[in-house]
Amino acid sequence: MSNYTNISFDKVKFTGGYWKKRYELNRDISVKSVRNRFEETGRFEALRYTYSEGKLRPHVYFDSDVAKWIEAVAYLIKSGNKCEEEKKLCEELIASMEKHQRDDGYLNSYFQQIDPENIFTRRGDHELYCAGHLLEAAIAYDDATNDPRFLNVMKRYMDCIEKAFIIDKTAKFSTPGHEEIELALLKMYEYTQDKKYLDMAMFFIDSRGTTDEPILKILDKAYDQNDTPLREVTEAVGHAVRAGYIYTAMAEAGRLADDKELADAAKRIYDNIITSRMYITGGIGASPKGEAFTVRYDLPNLEAYSESCAAISMLFYSLGMQKYGLDAKYPAIIERLLYNGLPVSTALDGKSFFYQNPLEIHMASVDKDVAMAPSNKTHLPPRHRAEVFECSCCPPNINRTYARIGDFFLAEYENTLVINQYAAMTAVTDKANITVDTVYPVDGKVNIRISNNQYDSIYLRKPEWCDSYTISIDATEKDGYIIIKGASELEFSIDFNMEIYFVESHPSIRGNNGLVALCYGPTVYCLERLDNDFDLGAASLDVKEALIAAKKIPTAEYALPDIETDGFVDEYFNELYRKVRQLKADKTKLRFRPYWTFANREECDMRVWIRRK
Amino acid sequence: MSNYTNISFDKVKFTGGYWKKRYELNRDISVKSVRNRFEETGRFEALRYTYSEGKLRPHVYFDSDVAKWIEAVAYLIKSGNKCEEEKKLCEELIASMEKHQRDDGYLNSYFQQIDPENIFTRRGDHELYCAGHLLEAAIAYDDATNDPRFLNVMKRYMDCIEKAFIIDKTAKFSTPGHEEIELALLKMYEYTQDKKYLDMAMFFIDSRGTTDEPILKILDKAYDQNDTPLREVTEAVGHAVRAGYIYTAMAEAGRLADDKELADAAKRIYDNIITSRMYITGGIGASPKGEAFTVRYDLPNLEAYSESCAAISMLFYSLGMQKYGLDAKYPAIIERLLYNGLPVSTALDGKSFFYQNPLEIHMASVDKDVAMAPSNKTHLPPRHRAEVFECSCCPPNINRTYARIGDFFLAEYENTLVINQYAAMTAVTDKANITVDTVYPVDGKVNIRISNNQYDSIYLRKPEWCDSYTISIDATEKDGYIIIKGASELEFSIDFNMEIYFVESHPSIRGNNGLVALCYGPTVYCLERLDNDFDLGAASLDVKEALIAAKKIPTAEYALPDIETDGFVDEYFNELYRKVRQLKADKTKLRFRPYWTFANREECDMRVWIRRK
Repeated sequence: MSNYTNISFDKVKFTGGYWKKRYELNRDISVKSVRNRFEETGRFEALRYTYSEGKLRPHVYFDSDVAKWIEAVAYLIKSGNKCEEEKKLCEELIASMEKHQRDDGYLNSYFQQIDPENIFTRRGDHELYCAGHLLEAAIAYDDATNDPRFLNVMKRYMDCIEKAFIIDKTAKFSTPGHEEIELALLKMYEYTQDKKYLDMAMFFIDSRGTTDEPILKILDKAYDQNDTPLREVTEAVGHAVRAGYIYTAMAEAGRLADDKELADAAKRIYDNIITSRMYITGGIGASPKGEAFTVRYDLPNLEAYSESCAAISMLFYSLGMQKYGLDAKYPAIIERLLYNGLPVSTALDGKSFFYQNPLEIHMASVDKDVAMAPSNKTHLPPRHRAEVFECSCCPPNINRTYARIGDFFLAEYENTLVINQYAAMTAVTDKANITVDTVYPVDGKVNIRISNNQYDSIYLRKPEWCDSYTISIDATEKDGYIIIKGASELEFSIDFNMEIYFVESHPSIRGNNGLVALCYGPTVYCLERLDNDFDLGAASLDVKEALIAAKKIPTAEYALPDIETDGFVDEYFNELYRKVRQLKADKTKLRFRPYWTFANREECDMRVWIRRK
Repeated sequence: MSNYTNISFDKVKFTGGYWKKRYELNRDISVKSVRNRFEETGRFEALRYTYSEGKLRPHVYFDSDVAKWIEAVAYLIKSGNKCEEEKKLCEELIASMEKHQRDDGYLNSYFQQIDPENIFTRRGDHELYCAGHLLEAAIAYDDATNDPRFLNVMKRYMDCIEKAFIIDKTAKFSTPGHEEIELALLKMYEYTQDKKYLDMAMFFIDSRGTTDEPILKILDKAYDQNDTPLREVTEAVGHAVRAGYIYTAMAEAGRLADDKELADAAKRIYDNIITSRMYITGGIGASPKGEAFTVRYDLPNLEAYSESCAAISMLFYSLGMQKYGLDAKYPAIIERLLYNGLPVSTALDGKSFFYQNPLEIHMASVDKDVAMAPSNKTHLPPRHRAEVFECSCCPPNINRTYARIGDFFLAEYENTLVINQYAAMTAVTDKANITVDTVYPVDGKVNIRISNNQYDSIYLRKPEWCDSYTISIDATEKDGYIIIKGASELEFSIDFNMEIYFVESHPSIRGNNGLVALCYGPTVYCLERLDNDFDLGAASLDVKEALIAAKKIPTAEYALPDIETDGFVDEYFNELYRKVRQLKADKTKLRFRPYWTFANREECDMRVWIRRK
């Protein structure tokens, strides 16, 4: 077992800048907006058990949507936010669950009200997925409020599940089609220390890939990671959210059960993802077909799926891997997600969300798709965010992730304080009072004050993009960390020298050959057609010249600058094909904006990857 | 009415080089191979009317497959080839048709044997498409053999169709789902001068876009060009073969009926195609979904449909447009098709064929597709040619096209001889004996001898790719033609100075931005992975340097050279993303081969469009 512990979100308070704004946008706008949309769409009503013919019909995944929202509220309460109205609704729903839970412990608003004959018979129907989310919510609620009612309901439900799936084996499957119960059970084990929950998690983990249970219709056995025993897996496969959740469970179980085989598999798959199956944003799941991983290096920009929930699953997977010990690789991926793959999911006004997160918008391809009959659509992602979807898993997932976002910043390892991510924040741990002052990711300067310190050393993660830094205190460097010797009072500053740079991608990514992405610190940038009055495909740049010419232009969006630089736009001509005599391109200005801010105005073309001359 | 006439194929004899080899490959191998495959798959058996339970079941399009094959044989016979065995089979099939034609003239092997209750009720079932192909075959057979039996059968069938569709209107539709009958009726009008056939063609042409007949399930009304009255159409839409056939009919009808409105529409659509919807090969129909045109400039290389039949329809459409008078635009497109879009359809051994003709093969994308469940395939084109397909429209279409390929080379306009395409050939017309000697497209030198000449002038088309030429006789130039004054005996040579060059495409073709295609004369080249030991996506070239370094390397394939030149291959690295510090690319040789020769070895990556530095 590792001595590495992430410092819990409730100990971390954002005091200004980017993260305070993000945190409050979620708390004050997004959580309330999702609540309103869920009320309108019958999601809460489902858990009130009021369904009758003619009313909004519960759906198999409604419980999970509501559970994630309750979990978000619980985290907010745990961090000291009042959330009185939200808490009132939670209480009401918990009381309803208590009341309507069956005597045998079963609890699912869809199956109880719509399809009671088929309880525990169809592996594709999200039943244990809902149970897992309710369990995560109950743990968070218990932890936040010390009110055990919800957790007791879930304990009875877990007993019911244990009986049906493991003891009596009356359930008709052992590999739930959408994973989630596994990681929730592991969380329950960590919270209660009751080994029964670890055993249950292990049962579900080890059932996968070993049964002949029905194939879910959309894809093959790999769709829900049921093609190979998980311990033997070498490549990330199938539906990316399902994958991210089970791989997270593998990471957690490997550590909690000290199961090296499972831990190695989790590490192997993680490396497979980050070396061949991850967008520059940290997003995963390239294909809309099955919302899935496909083959290595298949990362199309226009047709990208890169579901918001998949980015979130990658955050939790990374957090789970991070717990194995000091390894700068994992927080580097977390940083990629925190400033790109996660924030792009949410509109600037906090009210609407992306389910899919494309890396290119090409309106002419949209026109093509519009012209197609329904059966022939290309499944291009939408070009604007929506407040609620029919399958609305992402918005409450975003709610609960931002509500506990503090989990990702600090850690303790043996007697070391590890600062993995930078934000203006304070944290009080048993061993120190920590104050970090910075406008990161707007700038790379970070001031750190640690008082009443009992840590032997402080590890500062050096961001992946950082080539050189200056620090005001004696420090050494090792494995991606800058190390400072402990002292009872420490006050120092570090400047990571945040610069504009370009990134190229592996030659095997077919759609990115000859292209570069502009980045500033951890933030990936994009061109939007509204800021660039030419066909974005016709734009190119000389990397060296563009770096020299690049200028930061202040904007209001979280103080992150737009970036203007010099580029070229191919000569326009009318023929479909013509002899190339010489390259004709006119000089132009290219105006980039942070990728995650795209699609907040009218729909238009967008590109992350730009042709280099 | 124009005085422009294409000189008929039967007057043109290929005497050597590329076209003699092509012509003989079709006659000696392809026509026989298709015959064997059709015999094996029950296509001829269908027209023997021997179907009973348990035997190979006729299909709605079998009559058209057989008709195109008979048409090919007829053209071969007309050109003086014996084709004894093939002729015997034709006789047998014609006798069978005579015997089994219903008393009311109806003739369709599928409906008569399988579904007689539904005759003339379902517009999507290729019934008049088959009738049209049978009619084209009968005209060709009558013309070749002077045996009127087949044509008489078809006259009775056309009477039956006229009665059901036009006079009594008992047919349940007036817009056949797959056009073809229209152009066949126009051919019949030209052949018989019986105006009734022109009227019938006009009926079907003018019915389109005016009815509420059932939408074919695959797409919307545009799928079979039934969304808009044809006279009003401005953009090519829908299934590319259906489109190409009806646009050909519009071109022919506009001329034959002196119908300016229809002629203008045909011209407008043609321009729309060649300025925004045509591959560099002349291929059309970008999308596998509906085998269809989509939006302007949507010409993906990897997912290209570009059906062989669509290329053939574009040849006939061009031939139809060419008849309006001297315009070098049309034979330029024909040349593009003759050396690229058409020959790629056929394997070097003449036995197997492509249905789809992609401009890129990327085996990793194939792997991705293989991993998908059937409902989620990307519809990537196959990577190798096949001898027969379930829907085997293309192979006999290729047979009949090569059997009359001489139609495309020479024309008469007023008292002018027009040489539109170059081949080693002789032609005897009423006004001259013509001998052309050349190894075109291997080289641009052409020697021409015209004896007993009564033409006032000779027009030589200057190929689109030709920047400069030398000619051994006094000549003027106008509108893409080189003009030589007539004399009773003419002997001269012209050298079109065939060079290697690069082509770029319109900036709006999303997949081709920053890419160039290497061409030599009329021939488009490609890279195949088997000749280039690196990821083709990582290859690039400097246009100027590559032109200087380019060397022709003799090969056996029709004497067309491979071309080797200098290029670069991006440095290979393992990270998925990395900072671009400077462009690292190693020098490499790039070996190009004629595009149409690709996929004649083992399956491998292929690219037409290469990145330019």
